[in-house]
Amino acid sequence: MRLRCMCLVIHAPGDLRLDEQDAGEIGPGQVLVKVAMGGICGSDLHYFRHGGFGTVRIQEPMVLGHEVAGTVAAVAPDVTSVKVGDRVAVNPSRPCGACRYCLEGLPNHCLDMRFYGSAMRMPHIQGAFRDTLLCNASQCVAVADGIPLSLAALAEPFSVGLHAVSRAGSLLGKRVLVSGCGPIGALAAAAAKVHGAAEVVAVDVVDEPLAVARALGASATINVATDPGWVQRHAADKGTFDVMIECSGNERALRDGLETMRPRGVVVQLGLGGDVSLPQNLVVAKELSICGSFRFHAEFALAVKLINEGRVDLAPVVTCSFPMREAQAAFELAGDRRRAMKVLIDFAAAA
Amino acid sequence: MRLRCMCLVIHAPGDLRLDEQDAGEIGPGQVLVKVAMGGICGSDLHYFRHGGFGTVRIQEPMVLGHEVAGTVAAVAPDVTSVKVGDRVAVNPSRPCGACRYCLEGLPNHCLDMRFYGSAMRMPHIQGAFRDTLLCNASQCVAVADGIPLSLAALAEPFSVGLHAVSRAGSLLGKRVLVSGCGPIGALAAAAAKVHGAAEVVAVDVVDEPLAVARALGASATINVATDPGWVQRHAADKGTFDVMIECSGNERALRDGLETMRPRGVVVQLGLGGDVSLPQNLVVAKELSICGSFRFHAEFALAVKLINEGRVDLAPVVTCSFPMREAQAAFELAGDRRRAMKVLIDFAAAA
Amino acid sequence: MRLRCMCLVIHAPGDLRLDEQDAGEIGPGQVLVKVAMGGICGSDLHYFRHGGFGTVRIQEPMVLGHEVAGTVAAVAPDVTSVKVGDRVAVNPSRPCGACRYCLEGLPNHCLDMRFYGSAMRMPHIQGAFRDTLLCNASQCVAVADGIPLSLAALAEPFSVGLHAVSRAGSLLGKRVLVSGCGPIGALAAAAAKVHGAAEVVAVDVVDEPLAVARALGASATINVATDPGWVQRHAADKGTFDVMIECSGNERALRDGLETMRPRGVVVQLGLGGDVSLPQNLVVAKELSICGSFRFHAEFALAVKLINEGRVDLAPVVTCSFPMREAQAAFELAGDRRRAMKVLIDFAAAA
Amino acid sequence: MRLRCMCLVIHAPGDLRLDEQDAGEIGPGQVLVKVAMGGICGSDLHYFRHGGFGTVRIQEPMVLGHEVAGTVAAVAPDVTSVKVGDRVAVNPSRPCGACRYCLEGLPNHCLDMRFYGSAMRMPHIQGAFRDTLLCNASQCVAVADGIPLSLAALAEPFSVGLHAVSRAGSLLGKRVLVSGCGPIGALAAAAAKVHGAAEVVAVDVVDEPLAVARALGASATINVATDPGWVQRHAADKGTFDVMIECSGNERALRDGLETMRPRGVVVQLGLGGDVSLPQNLVVAKELSICGSFRFHAEFALAVKLINEGRVDLAPVVTCSFPMREAQAAFELAGDRRRAMKVLIDFAAAA
Repeated sequence: MRLRCMCLVIHAPGDLRLDEQDAGEIGPGQVLVKVAMGGICGSDLHYFRHGGFGTVRIQEPMVLGHEVAGTVAAVAPDVTSVKVGDRVAVNPSRPCGACRYCLEGLPNHCLDMRFYGSAMRMPHIQGAFRDTLLCNASQCVAVADGIPLSLAALAEPFSVGLHAVSRAGSLLGKRVLVSGCGPIGALAAAAAKVHGAAEVVAVDVVDEPLAVARALGASATINVATDPGWVQRHAADKGTFDVMIECSGNERALRDGLETMRPRGVVVQLGLGGDVSLPQNLVVAKELSICGSFRFHAEFALAVKLINEGRVDLAPVVTCSFPMREAQAAFELAGDRRRAMKVLIDFAAAA
Repeated sequence: MRLRCMCLVIHAPGDLRLDEQDAGEIGPGQVLVKVAMGGICGSDLHYFRHGGFGTVRIQEPMVLGHEVAGTVAAVAPDVTSVKVGDRVAVNPSRPCGACRYCLEGLPNHCLDMRFYGSAMRMPHIQGAFRDTLLCNASQCVAVADGIPLSLAALAEPFSVGLHAVSRAGSLLGKRVLVSGCGPIGALAAAAAKVHGAAEVVAVDVVDEPLAVARALGASATINVATDPGWVQRHAADKGTFDVMIECSGNERALRDGLETMRPRGVVVQLGLGGDVSLPQNLVVAKELSICGSFRFHAEFALAVKLINEGRVDLAPVVTCSFPMREAQAAFELAGDRRRAMKVLIDFAAAA
Repeated sequence: MRLRCMCLVIHAPGDLRLDEQDAGEIGPGQVLVKVAMGGICGSDLHYFRHGGFGTVRIQEPMVLGHEVAGTVAAVAPDVTSVKVGDRVAVNPSRPCGACRYCLEGLPNHCLDMRFYGSAMRMPHIQGAFRDTLLCNASQCVAVADGIPLSLAALAEPFSVGLHAVSRAGSLLGKRVLVSGCGPIGALAAAAAKVHGAAEVVAVDVVDEPLAVARALGASATINVATDPGWVQRHAADKGTFDVMIECSGNERALRDGLETMRPRGVVVQLGLGGDVSLPQNLVVAKELSICGSFRFHAEFALAVKLINEGRVDLAPVVTCSFPMREAQAAFELAGDRRRAMKVLIDFAAAA
Repeated sequence: MRLRCMCLVIHAPGDLRLDEQDAGEIGPGQVLVKVAMGGICGSDLHYFRHGGFGTVRIQEPMVLGHEVAGTVAAVAPDVTSVKVGDRVAVNPSRPCGACRYCLEGLPNHCLDMRFYGSAMRMPHIQGAFRDTLLCNASQCVAVADGIPLSLAALAEPFSVGLHAVSRAGSLLGKRVLVSGCGPIGALAAAAAKVHGAAEVVAVDVVDEPLAVARALGASATINVATDPGWVQRHAADKGTFDVMIECSGNERALRDGLETMRPRGVVVQLGLGGDVSLPQNLVVAKELSICGSFRFHAEFALAVKLINEGRVDLAPVVTCSFPMREAQAAFELAGDRRRAMKVLIDFAAAA
């Protein structure tokens, strides 16, 4: 008898449905996870609101979601890494392991990547917002006793922040600017702090996310909408920040940040924002580096480890959770930067 | 009795004069160089044509020039590194040696830099287009017998190309794209080749500079104006170039190049072009790095060494030379990309 | 009237005296510090016990000490960075700021270094174990309210650990082995932890220092004298440690550590131990890197900052303090690894 | 009908036989190469003379050899990368492509490596000294017209030198010391030169190999047996070499080299020599790095490319070739450093 499961499926912009689907059958190396918590990401929101972003558009119904944690309900006979009853965070990234980039140690650039809930290829890769998820045991990382699954569901976006930090190199003695303090920015601030940044200054145009960034480890915050003099204050002697983690995708944020970077400073660009106009002469004259950061790989296990050991407390990022049947409300709240950071969907809550 | 010298002075856009000035007096550690050859740089051209570039504008008469070579005519008693009669290339860069960046090993970011022929500060730093130059012995690097001073005058722009290569890290096994094949681009191609680039592909919109780039070591050249399909051919599997040395400052050149870069590719930006619009999502998704490269430091002595030893043949970059009194004609020719690469002024030619 | 001060002077092995000396006169940029606390370092112990180490031997009486903190008692008129009454840690490192290495950003390799309490050059550089110290204002870093000067005196050895961590590059996701848990090893463990090491495993042959290493941040400790199987347990699949910080200078510790390093692992060598025999074939086959780490530079200010902000708690390293007149007893205790980590001399205690 | 082939098999120290063996059958992705030239490597010599080295010993008869080039005689139907008649160099390295190190981009540390002619595992990996070799098409790199196969057979040892250079990072402006000028040392000198080393100084205790090193690109050579003052001459101001490529495995060579390295210098260790005694204090005080270099990966294709394009002329390394039936004489000559650099066996010569 095949298992059935309930999934959150985007059919068209604004058309989010709770559909029943075949859950598949456990094959070698696989496990069945009863999903508990799933975090709504910016890309989920874009699919929900606009049907996609840039050139990526939904062309067929697609299960959303890639930030999930749950409990192992069944395992294939050959699986030894996890067992029934284990609470796990699920890595949504599934590189092929055989293409040139995988073999160069760059699996986030896999030529055949299957990442949950992505319309970048056709057929789309179905997502993890479902009550039952069939996945590879190798995607599952055990969550420690006492860590709520709502925090474990943050492992994925925290991985994104950790990967950005890995792109910046050692932060020993470094002054780090984080621009854009949505969930990714706040988690990147936490990632920078736990890896020894001497200072982490977080900037945004809204106060509420800045408070969360401070709770996660920012040593100072600036609302640049109400403090326009901040650029000049930090631009003395060619600039004072060694590293910028740009999470807004906003042109103004990037340009202002470049003014405050010291020579040879490194900007790690995480935010996506289409075309941006850059002051090339400034990049040249200060020999700045602007480095893209895309998804993550080994950082997923590290994220769970740091959460498990209590070396970061990410709880302030979680705004609240909604039962699966109220997903529409969850998505609506998730888009309000003054009221929401990370909104979770509770797939285990009583229907 | 004070020495007098003849100098090429820019008074206003288009107003270039041959003025007589006091040459100064030799102090401790100094030497007097009879300048033989001086190369016209893009910045000289900007002062000549427009009185400057960006926010940098001439506010008082300024001697132009920073690419010169000549013969030592006198030395202070304490100088031992060069002697009268030595033929030398003169490093136009004079960092302070005491500011925070100098002490971090980043003298090209000196907070008190005095670079010949620059209106970036007031009073301007007077340049080296003069028949007699008083400078520090430490700025002089000896030119080998048999090397014409017209080649030695290329040490400065070649240093710029070498510094760009140093910013890219090891080129072992790397495919390098050079965009924009003016003197700097062609010399950067030579610098990449002599440092082991597996391939150097040079692109431009004009054929003549491409021929020079090939003569200097490019393994292939593409006129992108007549071969618009080049981007697609090099963009397979997320792109094929490991390194791009962007010398044009042109937005289209940079954007096209980004399409052809492989994941984790490094763009070294040399060209200056004001604001440019960048595809941020591409930079993020391929984790590209865009790194500014500004002037040079230790690379000046290396440039002279490589020229001295014949490890590079830069002769194809030199278009022709004009006597000092015909400087106006030299500047006019220097601006014509089809007819001129590096135009020199001969300060020793009979008046 | 010239000031007088009391100094701890080594005259010959075992011959440590409290001598009165001229304290000098405040010149431009200088300050007078009333020294409160001074930590006894391994090199101080070597001078005390053996008159030196390796080829470095005392040839004239020398004031010992380079780990001190105190209170500013007077400042030259031109000094603005500190004021009378400030509590400060004093950086014992005084590079020349003008030699080739200083100008390359490598001041710890200064060709004319004057480091407190060192017999490496003649005349020796007199040390800081004195009740009154005349030094440059630039050597003083302010200590935060509430931080005892006994902790501030740890800034110097903590800087050594921080510099070692900087040599290892980013520790994100890395497993770090610290071998030898004297004060330097324990402080290096703290430095690794605060810079994000995923795990820090400390090993030693004595239990007491291991307990301190654990208190400072080691996630696990191993007494390798009683657990000889540790090497084999960590050597699976070519080894499991990414980084080793070798603080013992002991050949066996280094060789055992190499067995447990994974391919491309990095050993930062801090400990000094004369000649050691290395398994060259292992270094080659696993492509290990062994990198020396010597003193520190920018890390001194960082050390004080991390102590000031409470991001590290180094208190467990401090064993106890002795008044200046009991210095002999302090030195004797400092050499006993079971009873002592860092022994301090209190230069402000009532005589 | 199964193919038969003639192989050079080591049965015991000194017992080298020409045995007939089954050549195997072409499977998917495979090709049959008629081997033309095979170079005798130091490891082949060790098996011949001593039955192995260190703990690696022949426990069963093993075909020797891993430096070969030949002509494709047959291809499986699915092979498109090479065709019958192509002249190819054969990469002897066959990583598994699936272990953790392969997936980290470190295939030379593969946990399941099968490298031709190696007794490191049991059963041994049979080698390529045979007239007919069945291998994967992906191991074959096409040799350009006009390049003799005797030079193509150098691709493998040249790859070892290229990999060592890749471990040193950029050589721009660097002074490189190569110690030990056997075939690997001479080829490493060529690799350093073609990647832009400012200077390559080769040292050895025998004159003949030094002459070859000079022919391959060393800018200077020193016979350290007859010029013992060389260390002192290069040790001024803490040392003058930026990089050392140590190819001798000799303790004295390494120790002398360390004296001549400048602070932060990098030693790439290629030579294998058992235990060596190192001056730890020197490594620490100058913050030297000693980095192992083991085999190669992507460098094999690069080696063939550089040979194909004539960017290196490796001909001076080849001493002579012997027909397969005179292999014993070839091995005897190969061990004489005054008479032989690389001795080849000609597997295509008339029997």
